[in-house]
Amino acid sequence: MRRLSLNQATTKHWTLAETVDGCVRAGIGAIGLWRDRVAEVGVAEADRLVRRAGLHVSSLCRGGFFTVDGDGRAEALADNRRAIEECAALSADVLVLVSGGLPAGSRDLGYARSLVRDALDELVPYARELGVRLGIEPLHPMFCADRCVVSTLGQALDLAAPYPSEVVGVVVDTYHVWWDPDLFAHLARAGDRIASFQVCDWILPLPRDMLLGRGHVGEGYIDFRPIAAAVDAAGYRGYVEVEIFNERIWSAPGDETVRRVRESFAEHVDNQGTSTARPAT
Amino acid sequence: MRRLSLNQATTKHWTLAETVDGCVRAGIGAIGLWRDRVAEVGVAEADRLVRRAGLHVSSLCRGGFFTVDGDGRAEALADNRRAIEECAALSADVLVLVSGGLPAGSRDLGYARSLVRDALDELVPYARELGVRLGIEPLHPMFCADRCVVSTLGQALDLAAPYPSEVVGVVVDTYHVWWDPDLFAHLARAGDRIASFQVCDWILPLPRDMLLGRGHVGEGYIDFRPIAAAVDAAGYRGYVEVEIFNERIWSAPGDETVRRVRESFAEHVDNQGTSTARPAT
Repeated sequence: MRRLSLNQATTKHWTLAETVDGCVRAGIGAIGLWRDRVAEVGVAEADRLVRRAGLHVSSLCRGGFFTVDGDGRAEALADNRRAIEECAALSADVLVLVSGGLPAGSRDLGYARSLVRDALDELVPYARELGVRLGIEPLHPMFCADRCVVSTLGQALDLAAPYPSEVVGVVVDTYHVWWDPDLFAHLARAGDRIASFQVCDWILPLPRDMLLGRGHVGEGYIDFRPIAAAVDAAGYRGYVEVEIFNERIWSAPGDETVRRVRESFAEHVDNQGTSTARPAT
Repeated sequence: MRRLSLNQATTKHWTLAETVDGCVRAGIGAIGLWRDRVAEVGVAEADRLVRRAGLHVSSLCRGGFFTVDGDGRAEALADNRRAIEECAALSADVLVLVSGGLPAGSRDLGYARSLVRDALDELVPYARELGVRLGIEPLHPMFCADRCVVSTLGQALDLAAPYPSEVVGVVVDTYHVWWDPDLFAHLARAGDRIASFQVCDWILPLPRDMLLGRGHVGEGYIDFRPIAAAVDAAGYRGYVEVEIFNERIWSAPGDETVRRVRESFAEHVDNQGTSTARPAT
């Protein structure tokens, strides 16, 4: 259980302070933070809360949404620079980047993807300067149109390739990549590019808001152990975050959710009982 | 417009005879048939109806659902043999195969995919004997768990590779493959493996039944012309089927749907105005 991290999106109705306390009560040593919840108390206070509790910050969610042109572009880049600063201030292992979908009114996927490359090129020097690692997260292809034109781990690795791996890595979230016939090849190729490993399950039916269809580990269709083993074999030694968006799970008491997270992680994911999480640099 | 084919699923509330008449009224020269609608009149009568109307049969939908083990397996293979016979009797260009999702109670994607390979191996000799071409259709990854473990065109091409291309090809449906960062590489590789080209649009939000979220060409996010051009460049000269599952479109009068199909095809897909469809062998 030493590698388990709770992403605070999983206990959505808890404040940051409540989630920190919940982690401590449950003996969970790391937390994944969200910028909006950090902003509620301010970065300095958020940092104080997690340090005082002895928690490691395994990720900051998130930057990205690069697929804007015109006036929106400068604004998007400025917001990402602020996210990099927050990531540095919180000593988070990685800033998770979700690329954005097709630009408004456009059907040109190639162009959208070029905007992602361009934005990375602009942000990498600043991330490097601040010692922040960027993590490109491929999202499930069903989010390609409106949320993320980076749809496979292979594509994320291609986007990361021009940069040093300590500055640009990739985020592996089982929900988004489990279906990929090339997943294990991509993971073998990924090596030290893996900057974050997140888990939750694919369940059906998808809800009206398809963002919220994720299940507790073990509730659905994903076979976690082979994926966890391949992530491990690639050399990843960081935390494993449980990140779940689901109205049903959100409406449960936080401590019950955390208990379930611990139990399902032990049952379905944690095959490295003896290894200790080694935070990414 | 000579390459346009109407898949009868698009005018779901029409019988086969009504869809045949609708094609004739609209000057559409080909039709994609569904086995359940053919069964309503019988294969011989269905064949008579389409021949009398001078229609070409661009596909028969569908076989597949191979991911069953135990007792279900023999039954699935027997049903696919009947589908091959029907395809031969109807002189359809291709029998579309949808592989099936994870076997009941299983999370083992690798095993599910091996069942698809095994079933193809058993069916290919019979298809060859009857002169039927099988078309492996990758479905969008959001259908991986429950409907189709073949999720990319590259994977479909790998499955087809051991067999002669005139016996095993692949089906390219824009709805399922448009998001793929490797789509154009897969299409270039596909060459004469392309056995069917189907079009409909990706629209949002997905409906409760995510099978029914498809839109008229031009209603959504897909850029059709580059895909159509790449399919053409690969050497495909068959019909282009419009196949749409959508309650809203189904509830419109059939002739209105057919008119819309013609118009949107001309506006968004048909960039080979001078070339005539050459049915696959």
